[in-house]
Amino acid sequence: MLPKISAFALLCGLFCALFAHDHGQRKIVFPDVPGYYTLKCDFHQHTVFSDGNVWPNIRVQEGLRDGLDAISVTDHIEYQPHLADIPHPDRNRSYEIAAKAAEGTELLVVRGAEITRGMPPGHCNAIFVEDVNKLMVEDPMEAFREAKKQGAFTFWNHPNWIAHRSDGIATLTDMHRTLIAEGLINGIEVVNEDTYSEEALRIGLDNNLTLMGTSDIHGLIDWDYNVPAGGHRPVTLVFAKERTFEAIREGLLAGRTVVWFNNTLVGREAYLKPLLVSSLSVSAGKALTNRDGATTVFEFEIENSSDANLIVENLSDFTLHQHANILVFPAHEKTRIQIKPRERKAVFQMKLTVLNAITAPDQHPELVLDLRLGE
Amino acid sequence: MLPKISAFALLCGLFCALFAHDHGQRKIVFPDVPGYYTLKCDFHQHTVFSDGNVWPNIRVQEGLRDGLDAISVTDHIEYQPHLADIPHPDRNRSYEIAAKAAEGTELLVVRGAEITRGMPPGHCNAIFVEDVNKLMVEDPMEAFREAKKQGAFTFWNHPNWIAHRSDGIATLTDMHRTLIAEGLINGIEVVNEDTYSEEALRIGLDNNLTLMGTSDIHGLIDWDYNVPAGGHRPVTLVFAKERTFEAIREGLLAGRTVVWFNNTLVGREAYLKPLLVSSLSVSAGKALTNRDGATTVFEFEIENSSDANLIVENLSDFTLHQHANILVFPAHEKTRIQIKPRERKAVFQMKLTVLNAITAPDQHPELVLDLRLGE
Amino acid sequence: MLPKISAFALLCGLFCALFAHDHGQRKIVFPDVPGYYTLKCDFHQHTVFSDGNVWPNIRVQEGLRDGLDAISVTDHIEYQPHLADIPHPDRNRSYEIAAKAAEGTELLVVRGAEITRGMPPGHCNAIFVEDVNKLMVEDPMEAFREAKKQGAFTFWNHPNWIAHRSDGIATLTDMHRTLIAEGLINGIEVVNEDTYSEEALRIGLDNNLTLMGTSDIHGLIDWDYNVPAGGHRPVTLVFAKERTFEAIREGLLAGRTVVWFNNTLVGREAYLKPLLVSSLSVSAGKALTNRDGATTVFEFEIENSSDANLIVENLSDFTLHQHANILVFPAHEKTRIQIKPRERKAVFQMKLTVLNAITAPDQHPELVLDLRLGE
Amino acid sequence: MLPKISAFALLCGLFCALFAHDHGQRKIVFPDVPGYYTLKCDFHQHTVFSDGNVWPNIRVQEGLRDGLDAISVTDHIEYQPHLADIPHPDRNRSYEIAAKAAEGTELLVVRGAEITRGMPPGHCNAIFVEDVNKLMVEDPMEAFREAKKQGAFTFWNHPNWIAHRSDGIATLTDMHRTLIAEGLINGIEVVNEDTYSEEALRIGLDNNLTLMGTSDIHGLIDWDYNVPAGGHRPVTLVFAKERTFEAIREGLLAGRTVVWFNNTLVGREAYLKPLLVSSLSVSAGKALTNRDGATTVFEFEIENSSDANLIVENLSDFTLHQHANILVFPAHEKTRIQIKPRERKAVFQMKLTVLNAITAPDQHPELVLDLRLGE
Repeated sequence: MLPKISAFALLCGLFCALFAHDHGQRKIVFPDVPGYYTLKCDFHQHTVFSDGNVWPNIRVQEGLRDGLDAISVTDHIEYQPHLADIPHPDRNRSYEIAAKAAEGTELLVVRGAEITRGMPPGHCNAIFVEDVNKLMVEDPMEAFREAKKQGAFTFWNHPNWIAHRSDGIATLTDMHRTLIAEGLINGIEVVNEDTYSEEALRIGLDNNLTLMGTSDIHGLIDWDYNVPAGGHRPVTLVFAKERTFEAIREGLLAGRTVVWFNNTLVGREAYLKPLLVSSLSVSAGKALTNRDGATTVFEFEIENSSDANLIVENLSDFTLHQHANILVFPAHEKTRIQIKPRERKAVFQMKLTVLNAITAPDQHPELVLDLRLGE
Repeated sequence: MLPKISAFALLCGLFCALFAHDHGQRKIVFPDVPGYYTLKCDFHQHTVFSDGNVWPNIRVQEGLRDGLDAISVTDHIEYQPHLADIPHPDRNRSYEIAAKAAEGTELLVVRGAEITRGMPPGHCNAIFVEDVNKLMVEDPMEAFREAKKQGAFTFWNHPNWIAHRSDGIATLTDMHRTLIAEGLINGIEVVNEDTYSEEALRIGLDNNLTLMGTSDIHGLIDWDYNVPAGGHRPVTLVFAKERTFEAIREGLLAGRTVVWFNNTLVGREAYLKPLLVSSLSVSAGKALTNRDGATTVFEFEIENSSDANLIVENLSDFTLHQHANILVFPAHEKTRIQIKPRERKAVFQMKLTVLNAITAPDQHPELVLDLRLGE
Repeated sequence: MLPKISAFALLCGLFCALFAHDHGQRKIVFPDVPGYYTLKCDFHQHTVFSDGNVWPNIRVQEGLRDGLDAISVTDHIEYQPHLADIPHPDRNRSYEIAAKAAEGTELLVVRGAEITRGMPPGHCNAIFVEDVNKLMVEDPMEAFREAKKQGAFTFWNHPNWIAHRSDGIATLTDMHRTLIAEGLINGIEVVNEDTYSEEALRIGLDNNLTLMGTSDIHGLIDWDYNVPAGGHRPVTLVFAKERTFEAIREGLLAGRTVVWFNNTLVGREAYLKPLLVSSLSVSAGKALTNRDGATTVFEFEIENSSDANLIVENLSDFTLHQHANILVFPAHEKTRIQIKPRERKAVFQMKLTVLNAITAPDQHPELVLDLRLGE
Repeated sequence: MLPKISAFALLCGLFCALFAHDHGQRKIVFPDVPGYYTLKCDFHQHTVFSDGNVWPNIRVQEGLRDGLDAISVTDHIEYQPHLADIPHPDRNRSYEIAAKAAEGTELLVVRGAEITRGMPPGHCNAIFVEDVNKLMVEDPMEAFREAKKQGAFTFWNHPNWIAHRSDGIATLTDMHRTLIAEGLINGIEVVNEDTYSEEALRIGLDNNLTLMGTSDIHGLIDWDYNVPAGGHRPVTLVFAKERTFEAIREGLLAGRTVVWFNNTLVGREAYLKPLLVSSLSVSAGKALTNRDGATTVFEFEIENSSDANLIVENLSDFTLHQHANILVFPAHEKTRIQIKPRERKAVFQMKLTVLNAITAPDQHPELVLDLRLGE
């Protein structure tokens, strides 16, 4: 009956690898940074109240399972394929149902909506609004102005969408420039669903727009993002002074975000670098020894407390005893490194670039880790 | 990828040996039996059109992912908590949406509804009806008669429900006896969601009711049944002459079902035994050898092509060389057995009882496998 | 990387079982019982000093990885296939090397040897001897007497071995009866490597012999027992008053053992029952509630702290709300059960039989668990 | 226990994402290259005949399980800690036993030995020799000359060993220069056990030495390299015209090798590039479509048939629709990429650098993949 035992061991394995996702492991985890909480947010989602396939309470449960801090259900206000069955004229309904479902939980549900228009300006989300119904006006500009009047944070959805750009290249139009100039568009999606746009990143950086990443989910998060297999939805990490609606809104308007999708982090260096530094902690090191005593090969443990498997390039003035210049610090693991500086010092500086972190097209942040010897 | 896939399948096989499926193998698999297709069905499910949380198309996608042959969305016709948002008066809507979503797939969507009443008679499902709206009548008896008039197959839901029976003991009332006598109730749930009722099984057997097992799903199958961890929803295996609506209806009315939940099979011996026999195939055996040549210890491989990890008791007149009297034939695996009959024969009969198969309270089917030696 | 491809991530999931095994999970775990430590022992192993393939220190490392308390390397004293390369005349060498390798660890290495003879009496192990060389005498009876003189515990190896019994049926000869009568054979292997002998169990019970299970390993434990896939070697659980050589010897001579192989436990009821009772703990229970308040359906959690996936049959005077009469308490898991006793009591008695525990051919121990309601 | 395993599962899933093997597929797999077989070899291993802990047949079985084409057991000829038990004077014994154990298998066992000396020159292996005993001479130079006379391929072991170099920095001595000049040292280990030496790589390239990677195993491969968790031993991939001893020797003397350790490949560009090109195959691509028809976003599948999870940087003149400039092609997986070239062409050239492939210190090979559209 060996197979049965094997079966059980494997069950444990799979149980943990998969079911563990229902026991905390699926939660998205990144450390806070100095001065700010790192809040995991998804501000682009749909329900049966527009073209989504679930009741709003499911979006809340998905958010809680993913360990999110804030979500918004942003149903289209013009596009209502289920209108025949759900004729309700109040466009705030999906928000209200989700907000009620989240009562008594830690999850913040932000009132929002998607303003669906042809190009330009295409699709945009307005969140932190007061009354979605008031956004239902003919003239796009008016809708944006109304949103701003309500104190909204507004962002341009999937500027790389092939339905609007057959080359998939995000490009600004005059109308976008006007909206940005008037402060009517505050952010831009560099990641939407399973797409990433280097051109949108360029536009965001050049126009001082907040960088956003969203799931734009219509079906189930678990299916569309292979959650049981270890996948995760794209999220926007917002660096906020508090765990409050207002603090998140402030963080978004201030552009303090990093986008997390697949195994890649995208953000301005000012926010991405602190996130990476906070993710890596180094244990006190020790010298390896041989028959003659201490050598000048030193061992340290670097712990990565983030969900990202960090792919790094060693740029230090010393080589490594067990790795080439490219190595990986796996998520939530301790990685042992041994350095060969040729001489003993109290502190060594490890200079590295994180290759799966993006601060601008083809640009990666450079970090310096202090490696300290123990007593 | 093939080597890894097969390795993966092997490991999955082992994993499956305890509690059913892993994520990659979530499809429910049981072999056909002589004369009938073994169709996997779930005839008790809810959507946003009553107290469920998903649009009907999600039920179709769940069914396809689980490898089901037929489903029914059986929304309550009296109980409509979402009425404020979904005022649609037509109780056929959820069926129509699901049926449309299933177009072009193998999945059969059966029109049905749940007739919610107080006790007696409690909750019942009517499936294979023509117009759900016509079931919305005051008098329960009338509703059942209308269902029958439409050609429905009707079954009593969760007779063990603690909301109706605070001792959880399924018990017939006079009204039930009348409904059964008039052929207005054809089946009974022995399994509903995560509950099993031995008393319901007794009632079903004593009153010639079709044995049913259903998910009664309101949320998501993946979450409520831990599918990523290898769990599965309860299903009713219907033995049907064809893969058609009419053949399923005929099979249900004829009582040809086996219920599959957790790692347990429940059904009348007449249907459960053929299912088990069809699930087990024996390879040609060979004698073990020692220095003097052939011994009278013989080795066979028994392959289990079902999803059930069969827990069996050996009742043969020989003992086993590697197992005690209780052993497991893991799902979708080959299990090697070595028998010690003390003498050589062309065919040996292995008599066994399948302990996780139930034909009546505390009763398990007895099988005889022919073990044949190869040339 | 990981998040992107589900098949890939799933494979990763599968590795977890394996990985876990290399990090503690492979250790064999059973609870102590009242009055005794439950010591995990393997007293039949080979090294390069007879027909094994590893240096004795590897046996020590395997034992430590498996979490064993005691082992013996029992190299054949007559059979020396490596004699040309290892001509050493001292038959204590493998013991001495293993004992040295175990210094500073918790593992107890018992001096022993295998006395290889034709049938009768076949192969026997003598452990707790003082000088293996003195066992090298012509007359088998003399060898046994010498072993006894040294204070040995002696047991009959694989009485079902097809090399000696072409029907695989363990059978006593007059010589065995004599040896037993003179106290020169104290134990018998009911499990050797991948075989189990019901007839050996019968002989052991009828002749008051200690029941033994051993790996008889020649190659690598990890390979022969599929440890990476969750398998484990057969072990003899010895119930000893202390973690000392003398206490183990005393426990063996007193017959206080249970054999653990695959997913089966074999032992005298006097020792197997306490082991099972110690393995199962029940949480304080609570009544399920419905609209009218408390029901008479009560929920408990049963935790299994052993490595055995216990297959149990419910023989109580109440039925279960979620299980049929056969259920499994998986190793190192909490299993939720709901009982339907029809009335409230402070304590309910759950009567069950553990089917994969064997106290005699086809006999299984019966336990009674007290299920207590919380405040 | 479950949470604990869950933790392992998470770590392990990630661990495995980086070192992709599973138990069922432990065999090391790399494709052949144009003109050569890619043979997996480990030419530095020990047994009980020097300071190893296993009989030579275990090295053969490990090699077969790892899918190796050739191995050598290179026991020290001067260092014999087990001499008291294994006094055999013939230093060819471990080879002879291993060769016999490999009879009837595909595995080629090469006669070899380790010449253990102080620094300089330190430790070297001589393989493809005719009689190991003849290498046992006083003067090191004589030993190398004898090896050469026998037609040996000789390489410098772990030049970074901290026992000989307390800074871990591989450095040539005059004696090494002489040995190299006389053709008495043909290769150098850039990888030994768990260490990698960038300086040894530099020395190897500058002095036209064959680049070697070996396990230097003394215990068990499965334990020292976490094989059950997906780890693998370091191997030298030799590009040989045939699967013969002579072809391997010729390939080694010609310097046609790539070293595979952890998730890194090290080799001269002339051999590493063909290996990578042979590892990647591209499916026929197709244009994505929107309402207006075909777009200029094109999708391809890139299959990686090697064991290496290739970490690549996109240097093409187009951006990707779903990835940033750094992406991973997981081992034995198909990876979907979508490119945005802004215009349609029959063939697109994807220019990329493989970051975990090393052709010289801090240098990575650059590849060009042709991406062809289907009909």
